[in-house]
Amino acid sequence: MDQKVEKLFRENNLIFIATINLDGSPHLTPVWGDYQDGHVLVNTAEGRIKHRNVLHDSRVAVSVVSDDNPLDMTTIRGHVVDIISDYDYTHADKLAKKYMDLPKYPFKRINEKRIIFKIKPEHVYVLPAINMKQG
Amino acid sequence: MDQKVEKLFRENNLIFIATINLDGSPHLTPVWGDYQDGHVLVNTAEGRIKHRNVLHDSRVAVSVVSDDNPLDMTTIRGHVVDIISDYDYTHADKLAKKYMDLPKYPFKRINEKRIIFKIKPEHVYVLPAINMKQG
Repeated sequence: MDQKVEKLFRENNLIFIATINLDGSPHLTPVWGDYQDGHVLVNTAEGRIKHRNVLHDSRVAVSVVSDDNPLDMTTIRGHVVDIISDYDYTHADKLAKKYMDLPKYPFKRINEKRIIFKIKPEHVYVLPAINMKQG
Repeated sequence: MDQKVEKLFRENNLIFIATINLDGSPHLTPVWGDYQDGHVLVNTAEGRIKHRNVLHDSRVAVSVVSDDNPLDMTTIRGHVVDIISDYDYTHADKLAKKYMDLPKYPFKRINEKRIIFKIKPEHVYVLPAINMKQG
């Protein structure tokens, strides 16, 4: 994938993920995630609306904007090709380090089971460089 | 609407908007916008995919996260109840001021016609305050 896209996912920028509700309307939330071996990995929990949604329709869109430069952005369309268990919080802990510089995921809830959406990018959009005109 | 939600839209936080493509998959992009008289106003241009999408299905979701605190966020589900012309760039200029502190919208393109999605919030989610646990 484009170096710029990988960079946006490597940095601690929030990821937004859109899924489809059962009634066909869009569902949208900010999430933590990263990028590994050609896939976007988004961390969530079992039973969330977006989990229910992707079990029904695996098509998603994810968007990331650089905290440093809002013109540095990407939107990816793809499918959730796998849902991986993160019951031991390995991925959640890694993301807590990335996003909050904490050694452990700080939002543990009793009975919550973390999972990972493995998203295969199928269409990648990167905002091209823009010439700004004033006036 | 909740004061916290209004504040998130008043500040210069990017807004993410999800719409539904004609094939039922989700479409997602960051946009500029604000909040007025009980509606979210999102600025875009005629002919964009999201414009085509909302003409076909007016259901959208918008999400905003505070630049200052990623736990300060809202997601709103609603409908585009009106599409207002911004051909004279009044709203785009106002948003250029808000987001870039520029007097005029700097990305004008020949033949581009700016428009405003007027979104009526129907379901508002605000992330509740969270107790962090470490370890």
